[in-house]
Amino acid sequence: MLIMRGGGQSSGDQKPEEDSTLKTVKTIVDGKYFQGTIIGVILINAIILGLQTVRGFSAETQETLHILDQICLWIFVLELIIKLWVFRLSFFKTGGNIFDALIVGISFLPAQGGLTILRTFRIFRVLRLVTAIRSMRIVVTGLLAAIPGAASVGGLLLILFYIASVMATTLFGDRFVDWFGSIGASMYTLFQIMTLESWSMGIARPVISEYPYAWAFFIPFIILSTFTVLNLFIGIMVDAIGVAKEEDSHHQEKEDIIRHETHDIILEMSERLKSMEGELKALKEVNQPLLDEQKD
Amino acid sequence: MLIMRGGGQSSGDQKPEEDSTLKTVKTIVDGKYFQGTIIGVILINAIILGLQTVRGFSAETQETLHILDQICLWIFVLELIIKLWVFRLSFFKTGGNIFDALIVGISFLPAQGGLTILRTFRIFRVLRLVTAIRSMRIVVTGLLAAIPGAASVGGLLLILFYIASVMATTLFGDRFVDWFGSIGASMYTLFQIMTLESWSMGIARPVISEYPYAWAFFIPFIILSTFTVLNLFIGIMVDAIGVAKEEDSHHQEKEDIIRHETHDIILEMSERLKSMEGELKALKEVNQPLLDEQKD
Amino acid sequence: MLIMRGGGQSSGDQKPEEDSTLKTVKTIVDGKYFQGTIIGVILINAIILGLQTVRGFSAETQETLHILDQICLWIFVLELIIKLWVFRLSFFKTGGNIFDALIVGISFLPAQGGLTILRTFRIFRVLRLVTAIRSMRIVVTGLLAAIPGAASVGGLLLILFYIASVMATTLFGDRFVDWFGSIGASMYTLFQIMTLESWSMGIARPVISEYPYAWAFFIPFIILSTFTVLNLFIGIMVDAIGVAKEEDSHHQEKEDIIRHETHDIILEMSERLKSMEGELKALKEVNQPLLDEQKD
Amino acid sequence: MLIMRGGGQSSGDQKPEEDSTLKTVKTIVDGKYFQGTIIGVILINAIILGLQTVRGFSAETQETLHILDQICLWIFVLELIIKLWVFRLSFFKTGGNIFDALIVGISFLPAQGGLTILRTFRIFRVLRLVTAIRSMRIVVTGLLAAIPGAASVGGLLLILFYIASVMATTLFGDRFVDWFGSIGASMYTLFQIMTLESWSMGIARPVISEYPYAWAFFIPFIILSTFTVLNLFIGIMVDAIGVAKEEDSHHQEKEDIIRHETHDIILEMSERLKSMEGELKALKEVNQPLLDEQKD
Repeated sequence: MLIMRGGGQSSGDQKPEEDSTLKTVKTIVDGKYFQGTIIGVILINAIILGLQTVRGFSAETQETLHILDQICLWIFVLELIIKLWVFRLSFFKTGGNIFDALIVGISFLPAQGGLTILRTFRIFRVLRLVTAIRSMRIVVTGLLAAIPGAASVGGLLLILFYIASVMATTLFGDRFVDWFGSIGASMYTLFQIMTLESWSMGIARPVISEYPYAWAFFIPFIILSTFTVLNLFIGIMVDAIGVAKEEDSHHQEKEDIIRHETHDIILEMSERLKSMEGELKALKEVNQPLLDEQKD
Repeated sequence: MLIMRGGGQSSGDQKPEEDSTLKTVKTIVDGKYFQGTIIGVILINAIILGLQTVRGFSAETQETLHILDQICLWIFVLELIIKLWVFRLSFFKTGGNIFDALIVGISFLPAQGGLTILRTFRIFRVLRLVTAIRSMRIVVTGLLAAIPGAASVGGLLLILFYIASVMATTLFGDRFVDWFGSIGASMYTLFQIMTLESWSMGIARPVISEYPYAWAFFIPFIILSTFTVLNLFIGIMVDAIGVAKEEDSHHQEKEDIIRHETHDIILEMSERLKSMEGELKALKEVNQPLLDEQKD
Repeated sequence: MLIMRGGGQSSGDQKPEEDSTLKTVKTIVDGKYFQGTIIGVILINAIILGLQTVRGFSAETQETLHILDQICLWIFVLELIIKLWVFRLSFFKTGGNIFDALIVGISFLPAQGGLTILRTFRIFRVLRLVTAIRSMRIVVTGLLAAIPGAASVGGLLLILFYIASVMATTLFGDRFVDWFGSIGASMYTLFQIMTLESWSMGIARPVISEYPYAWAFFIPFIILSTFTVLNLFIGIMVDAIGVAKEEDSHHQEKEDIIRHETHDIILEMSERLKSMEGELKALKEVNQPLLDEQKD
Repeated sequence: MLIMRGGGQSSGDQKPEEDSTLKTVKTIVDGKYFQGTIIGVILINAIILGLQTVRGFSAETQETLHILDQICLWIFVLELIIKLWVFRLSFFKTGGNIFDALIVGISFLPAQGGLTILRTFRIFRVLRLVTAIRSMRIVVTGLLAAIPGAASVGGLLLILFYIASVMATTLFGDRFVDWFGSIGASMYTLFQIMTLESWSMGIARPVISEYPYAWAFFIPFIILSTFTVLNLFIGIMVDAIGVAKEEDSHHQEKEDIIRHETHDIILEMSERLKSMEGELKALKEVNQPLLDEQKD
């Protein structure tokens, strides 16, 4: 809080001095000790949040854990404030920062309501590890980058699911309310079937005993859905390999240009040699008498 | 209907005027507003068909939904008639158009019979999204293109299934009628086993308790069938990568031609240089006396 | 039989005539009509063998089916005899022929004993489709070719299974006789666990309720076995891609040779040019007086 | 033991003689007969350890098996002592040797305690096959080499598991103590869910009947965890392919250098040719009068 206010004042009257402070703080924030400390606090906070799930702790221990959790939370708030002060508006340009702010912000929600669900969201703070550790950030960015390329196949899967769930609800909904009573229920059941979990013994066999031709619905659905998911998989993979190839082809292009240049130069040289040969012949003819003289 | 009749008359007496109308309609049909409208109608129709599965709606609401569905259906019919009028016989050259016509046609079937099954086929209209959205059409074309390459492995899988189901029916059919009572039942059960769903606890263990050596049937079947499916998967993948490689090799071939040309030219130049050198030497010899004279 | 005897006699006295007969038969056997007929008989036999599994046929129908099956069998025997006569010892050089002979031979076994199992082996005759259809033969050859490359990983999997089954038998065998009572039982159960079928709800949870630390056995086993199978998969795939690459590298090598030759020729040309330049300079010096004269 | 003591004495007084003994032993140890014998003993030991799990052997047979096992164990101890004597400190440089020593060492532990668990560790001796057979050693080294590259994705999976298990314990722990009572129990259950074993019928459906929105926890968890594992798989695969590519690019680099050299030489030659052409022209001009004279 103090730092924040300091930041607010400084922009007015003490500019040069302030700037040097800002610079120092910036190097500290970007330095590995600051980063390491934050990673440490995240890990400690993760352990605390884990311990809070243990039943049978005394009220006192629970209170201590709560206080420790609050300390961790305020350290994160402080970190964000410092970063906000240092980077100003460019703070919002990095996706990671916004993500961090959101995660920390969520922790202040349960105070208003009484929902357990919102309290469990505090554990998302462990996700800050992903933004804090570079190699993990790269992996997640890679995972997210693979999504748009898979959009069409994903859309196809969605259409397949919608059609199948409308059909299943209409056909089997009356007698199997739990599984196919509504489009939502059907979608859940079809997702289960797509993962192949108990699809036959659990779902299809009981349905078939009522509707003998139900296999003509389930087996094509399984083949189509798993084949589409397989295609999604192939698509992502070919994408991943494609990226590696692109670099290769950039290099290849440069080499091709050199090869073509070589080719052109050689063609030109060949022309020149031909004309030189002609001139040499002419010269020889001229000198022929001299040659003849010598021979005599 | 009016447009249709108009189209029928026009070919006779008002040709030039008609043609310009036809052209205008063609550009409208190919335009993005027409396409967007159709996609919109498909989506609205999908929602309506979804809502129709909801139980407990009042008769009035159900009637409204039915009317809205009919409106969507007639919009599709109108669209097809316009396209048929505009493109005439070339309408049937695009697979997508035939597919659309079939899907819309199915919706007129249930009126004749009383089968619920046929009514559920109306939901296939959502598949029109696939023909309407370009990127999805490409994905589906890709999926379909991968099928012929997998035909041999698919045939092998079929042979494996047929052999295994005949064997299972003969061996276990007497005591496990539900699972292996007929070739159809055996095929279904073996499909379930291939997906690894409850294969052991659900099927194999009970069978083994009756026929102790049944494991010698189930385990090889699982290994062979999953390995064959895996091979199908590898085949499709290598195919997909192969397509990317082919383009590469086309380029490579052109580069190879250039390289070979370069090589030939250089060989020729080398020959020429050799002969020029010989002639130069001869010239020098001729001029040697002159050179000697000068030195003196 | 007649043909066979004819073949036996002919080798002696009527050689030239015989040879032409042999040639004619050879072209017939290799021709597409003979092949097509055999494929047809295989398919008909497959249907007959399938029909024989149907319960509730009259004794008469069953007799008819048996006779038809016998006819198919004798057609196969005839085919093998013809091939044996035509190709003589080179008949045994093709793996497919030996395989066909074995499959047909199996069908004569049940006559001696009364085992149902041996009778079910008749269905293996459908496998003759694989040797008869070229594209399937290629696929199967490909599948078999992928096996030796996977031998090491397969061996590793075997060691993993043996170790795990000895451990499981020692640790859990006393209380879970059905699942882990002997090494064989353990291996079957571990195979089931590797396929992930009911591994937790069916096997691991009951075992854990008796031996609380059993998860430390099951989870590493699942991770190691699935990872090893995954490695087997990657190995086969990289192999399959590797084959495609090898052809590429053969071509590449030839291109490299050409490029190196080009390089050597150019180096030689450069040397020659340098020496020519020297001689030209000398020539110019000689002619310099002449040049000077002209200028004057 | 005798050899050991001999080794200890020798280093003092009989050096030259000793060295030749050492060399002989070294060639024997590295030879294929020694290796083959050890592999044989490992296999025999594996069979003995397998037989020891059989219930119902007489006390006598069990005693015989125990003695045979002890003999195998002492052969391994002898082998290690010989290797230690031959290779001295460099013995500890090979990972395989340390691994072998550890595995043999474990067998001496149970004598002190009474734990069955430690006794089962004897079966790990079969793992010596992996260090003894070269092709298996390569496969295992390959498997281990693939691990570090997968560390980031593995870490991500761990974070996902930790977050999900803390959430599940908080949300469902009260009513489903067996499945989600503690973080450990939740992690086990979530591992089961990730393998898709009975995730819906066994776990999610009962939980959903209590907490209707639980599907919003399970389905995203399944998608994220399987997608992350898929990514792990892709990562390892792209790595495996990447290694093959690197060799290719090494070769490519060398070829590029040659191509660039060729290019430079040709450029130089072209310059030289140009100047030569100039000089030739000058020469021709000089000789022109001579040429004219001749013509006259």
